[in-house]
Amino acid sequence: MTHDDFMRRAIELAETGMRGGHGGPFGAVIVKNGVVVGEGHNRVLSSNDPTAHAEVSAIRDASARMGAFDLSGCEIYVNGMPCPMCMAAVFWARIGRVYYACGAEDAEAIKFDDAAFYRELAKPPAERAVPAIQMSGHRDAAYKVYEDWLALPARVHY
Amino acid sequence: MTHDDFMRRAIELAETGMRGGHGGPFGAVIVKNGVVVGEGHNRVLSSNDPTAHAEVSAIRDASARMGAFDLSGCEIYVNGMPCPMCMAAVFWARIGRVYYACGAEDAEAIKFDDAAFYRELAKPPAERAVPAIQMSGHRDAAYKVYEDWLALPARVHY
Repeated sequence: MTHDDFMRRAIELAETGMRGGHGGPFGAVIVKNGVVVGEGHNRVLSSNDPTAHAEVSAIRDASARMGAFDLSGCEIYVNGMPCPMCMAAVFWARIGRVYYACGAEDAEAIKFDDAAFYRELAKPPAERAVPAIQMSGHRDAAYKVYEDWLALPARVHY
Repeated sequence: MTHDDFMRRAIELAETGMRGGHGGPFGAVIVKNGVVVGEGHNRVLSSNDPTAHAEVSAIRDASARMGAFDLSGCEIYVNGMPCPMCMAAVFWARIGRVYYACGAEDAEAIKFDDAAFYRELAKPPAERAVPAIQMSGHRDAAYKVYEDWLALPARVHY
């Protein structure tokens, strides 16, 4: 399979997932050294899981197949620009590059909130439509657990 | 349980998950009308799933318990400010409010990339450390699937 084939496959996954009633029209393919190591499509509706986007599903698939939370050396092909949840999932998975076909404005044209969520994340946390409020009285107790993590002899960084 | 109890529970989940070797020191509790409807802690290491953060795990738990991808009317308590993946997961789940104890700078102090990822997302997609590259030649074929979604008679918005 070629670079273009991987994108065609992502588009195909988007179409079949949508036709099957699994969720929105989104598909993703993860490739390492020219070989597909993970695939996914949106399953928000069929699984009742708002996090089951195509990219998250493909990352879970690749991680399960490879027995690894670190997908360094992989690239991901998606039919549409990842939403911020999925883009950050790509970052955490240490995937090196994203290829997409439709842009964020295309997702907005079919009434998905991706672009709005990018705009929300750029605001200060307390000023968002979904405000994030710090409970400062608990900060020291919470930070103690952070310090314990840093002091763990067998700490695995991810 | 009170407002403060929910945060204490999130911190407790962070501690026990970390001690159990499941992942980083993060816990989350989802509450609706004063009742806990979902809980989660970081399981990135034990599940080999880079998306298994505390908030995503708690959202999946609440959605499974309630049989719903829409968690409107819920609030989430987390021991640390959500990373962008988790914050956008909260948006998609339609959770109305986030309460946190440690800030993003606290996570940075114990060497997590949350703050760096927020900075990356603010850059143009092609200029990030993980570049997102549009394959424009596939855009029209991909957009056709988007249009098909919009035209679905039984389309469910999420």
